[in-house]
Amino acid sequence: MEKTTEPISTAYPATREKLHPAYSPASVDEVNEAAELAGKAFSSYGHLSGSAKATFLRAIAREIESIVDQLVERATAETGLPAARIQGETGRTCHQLRLFADLVEEGSWVDARIDRADPNRKPLPKVDIRSMHRPIGPVVVFCASNFPLAFSVAGGDTASALAAGNPVIVKAHHAHPGTAELVGNAVIRAARECDMPAGVFSLLYGSGSEIGTALITHPIIKAGGFTGSRSGGLALMRAAAARPEPIPFYAEMSSINPVVVFPGALEQNIEQLAAGLHGSVTLGAGQFCTNPGLVLLPKGDAAQKFTSRFAELMADTAPLTMLTPGICEAYQQGVAAHAAALSAVTLVDAAAPKDSAGCQAGTALFETDSESFLRDKSLSDEVFGPATLFVTHSNRDQLIAVLKNLEGHLTATVLGSESDLRENRDIIEILEGRVGRLVFNGFPTGVEVCHSMVHGGPYPATSDGRSTSVGTRAIYRFTRAVCFQNFPDTTLPVELQEANPNGIWRIVDGSFMK
Amino acid sequence: MEKTTEPISTAYPATREKLHPAYSPASVDEVNEAAELAGKAFSSYGHLSGSAKATFLRAIAREIESIVDQLVERATAETGLPAARIQGETGRTCHQLRLFADLVEEGSWVDARIDRADPNRKPLPKVDIRSMHRPIGPVVVFCASNFPLAFSVAGGDTASALAAGNPVIVKAHHAHPGTAELVGNAVIRAARECDMPAGVFSLLYGSGSEIGTALITHPIIKAGGFTGSRSGGLALMRAAAARPEPIPFYAEMSSINPVVVFPGALEQNIEQLAAGLHGSVTLGAGQFCTNPGLVLLPKGDAAQKFTSRFAELMADTAPLTMLTPGICEAYQQGVAAHAAALSAVTLVDAAAPKDSAGCQAGTALFETDSESFLRDKSLSDEVFGPATLFVTHSNRDQLIAVLKNLEGHLTATVLGSESDLRENRDIIEILEGRVGRLVFNGFPTGVEVCHSMVHGGPYPATSDGRSTSVGTRAIYRFTRAVCFQNFPDTTLPVELQEANPNGIWRIVDGSFMK
Repeated sequence: MEKTTEPISTAYPATREKLHPAYSPASVDEVNEAAELAGKAFSSYGHLSGSAKATFLRAIAREIESIVDQLVERATAETGLPAARIQGETGRTCHQLRLFADLVEEGSWVDARIDRADPNRKPLPKVDIRSMHRPIGPVVVFCASNFPLAFSVAGGDTASALAAGNPVIVKAHHAHPGTAELVGNAVIRAARECDMPAGVFSLLYGSGSEIGTALITHPIIKAGGFTGSRSGGLALMRAAAARPEPIPFYAEMSSINPVVVFPGALEQNIEQLAAGLHGSVTLGAGQFCTNPGLVLLPKGDAAQKFTSRFAELMADTAPLTMLTPGICEAYQQGVAAHAAALSAVTLVDAAAPKDSAGCQAGTALFETDSESFLRDKSLSDEVFGPATLFVTHSNRDQLIAVLKNLEGHLTATVLGSESDLRENRDIIEILEGRVGRLVFNGFPTGVEVCHSMVHGGPYPATSDGRSTSVGTRAIYRFTRAVCFQNFPDTTLPVELQEANPNGIWRIVDGSFMK
Repeated sequence: MEKTTEPISTAYPATREKLHPAYSPASVDEVNEAAELAGKAFSSYGHLSGSAKATFLRAIAREIESIVDQLVERATAETGLPAARIQGETGRTCHQLRLFADLVEEGSWVDARIDRADPNRKPLPKVDIRSMHRPIGPVVVFCASNFPLAFSVAGGDTASALAAGNPVIVKAHHAHPGTAELVGNAVIRAARECDMPAGVFSLLYGSGSEIGTALITHPIIKAGGFTGSRSGGLALMRAAAARPEPIPFYAEMSSINPVVVFPGALEQNIEQLAAGLHGSVTLGAGQFCTNPGLVLLPKGDAAQKFTSRFAELMADTAPLTMLTPGICEAYQQGVAAHAAALSAVTLVDAAAPKDSAGCQAGTALFETDSESFLRDKSLSDEVFGPATLFVTHSNRDQLIAVLKNLEGHLTATVLGSESDLRENRDIIEILEGRVGRLVFNGFPTGVEVCHSMVHGGPYPATSDGRSTSVGTRAIYRFTRAVCFQNFPDTTLPVELQEANPNGIWRIVDGSFMK
């Protein structure tokens, strides 16, 4: 492997002034060592009880909470995100760790199934068969630029992989290496407190194309989780699929999160609607995978009024600090491409840097009609930042044509009255086929961490549309079902033993029971 | 697409005498028509109630049972399998259809999850979120040569895909086109009886490389299921992954199903053990993906006695009729390759054709030691037919080295005493990491259709080690979770409505309840 040995350093996004220290990228030997330690750790960690894993996850949460002030200081400096956001994200990250702790302590998540023997069955006797979900093996987790905590070192993928019983190797993101170090040390302290095996967790630095590829192609690694750009996600997805043993790889890559505005919404409070959308588009400087980048409106006076008011709010927005110079440049380029498209009108373009020393960006708003949108594929490209595109249609057929042409996205939002919803079941159905989450009269930013959340969607929003990266369903990213036939009761995993010592919900001879 | 228009005909395996009629391969237009009809059918079929789908599945079972005599006549002629096997497989196929009917009628399989709103939550109000599994879209199913009913037109993948709410397009196997037609017509009669939309089911003929590839790469198709050779499975797997929108593709490809014999097993009844293994190796002329093709034995007198007795049984086995000339030739080649390997001794080689006009094959038994087995990779190749390889080891370390070197398989079997099981937990753990099903003191052939079955395993046994092709868990091959945020109760799917009209088990605010 060609190796870059350039240390990884970051800078204050607002000023681009360098932050210290710099972090050394991992060597090939360090990748191998982390993988081998993870492989060894798996044989003990993979068989820990739910309550032992819960204790570990809760210890991680406690250790992270104990350094919240340091995290706020370092993460705000590295990312330009405000202190309240870092505090909120720390809370969410710890809530997530505890939700998975509760899940594995309770234990029913393993989906234990028991079909008892029946020696008298005709024509053939029935043998005892039992199965449950088991951890898949060492997992590599790639930190996201835009969530220094909740989708990074001890974020969703790490929490679900550890909860399932898998050792984790995290690759830090170059946008917040110091935050990664703080959280990584918190995880390591928790692992020591709880006597976890060495190798249950490692943190490595380096580029995605080098260290990331080395990790995802390492034979000991059995799955991967990624949140980031489409190009980065696709490259790692291909590497995972091209292994001698292909492995599951969950990449969350891009989404423009269509918003369908029905007439009923425009008959209501336009001011509130415009303010709500504006809040969602500009939240976190627009750097969310759930950012609403496409708004579909029926042509008419009400839509025009709404558009004018929304444009005012966008134009009045002070420049926002983006996460990294790279993200800021990509945003400016995306805005410039939309502005240059003959088929779109620029309503607001405050995207040009106000302060060339920092990562400052203004908002952008574009408008076009459905025919032009369908003709110009480039208008479907994600512009990662505080920008959105309004697409107007003259009738229902035009709206349906746009929706049928959409790729996979994480979310779709419907704004309207309850009767709009009822009268447009076919439209809801089209949307349902293209996203993981449907939102009614709300905005897609803000992803609740809970049992029912689906934060995923058909390709190319993610590499695997069957999965979610948020919520307790995410534990099944890193498991597979294993079946035991005719095993003596005491040699079975406790979850499958006849007496059900953990008192979990199971499917016994076809019926749910405890 | 290059198109072969040669009609597909089959022959009596025992005599190679041609059977009539010949079946025309599908044209490109027919592929497109079937896909478009399936896409249209999805929008209604995908929203049918569980009980409506159950009625359809049970009607298919009834229609198949009504033609069991014709099926026995045609399928025995096409495959050379005995009548009792076809009768048994018909029963299994109908049981499978009814098991999925019961599953979707009861309804809890959708894994409905409800997190209710909490407007008073701090710092942010909590919004109502609900999610459940929904069908993925039109599915293509490839028939297997070795199961003319249970893994073919109305077999496991078709049953689970239809149960989930997906239209199905089946590609018939050239080994039993007439059986496919009979079953296909039964499904079509059931669809008419139940007023199903046109396109809920189609049956096409043609080669895997032409019609199979055209189907799996069609944009309307959203998933595929396959049981067959590694080369065929890998080609379709690559085609599914290379689509502009990659789709889930479940291929069950090859497995040698290791059997670990512990000393405790050899201390017991050697006669019974040899007879059991012989029955498993020769069942269905060895043409099962769960056929035990590798037996690991501790060196010594007991093992020698066992090997001699097993070799006698194998040598005394009358020639068996294989499914097709292609399978028979591949078997002879596989046996010849093992026989030519310097590192293996041929104990029984009755594989040479006794009757060159038919698809006759004898049994084969090879023996080698663990060091030679580890050195010669070719000995790990699947020989699809009534052959097996005994590998002896001098100590536990040699056994562990062999096991650690195994690829993914469908099953692993442990023969021994309960204390062997208890004293070799590390070995069970190694096996668990490499298979979907562990069998204790039994044989891997015979796959129970039930809730707990896992018929799958890590790559290369299957293309996706997270999945099973048998049992009710298989329904999740063809679904994905979809989440509804803030939807008015009456606009939600019934499974997610507050009153729980279907009375299904759900996870409500974190707790299982009805």
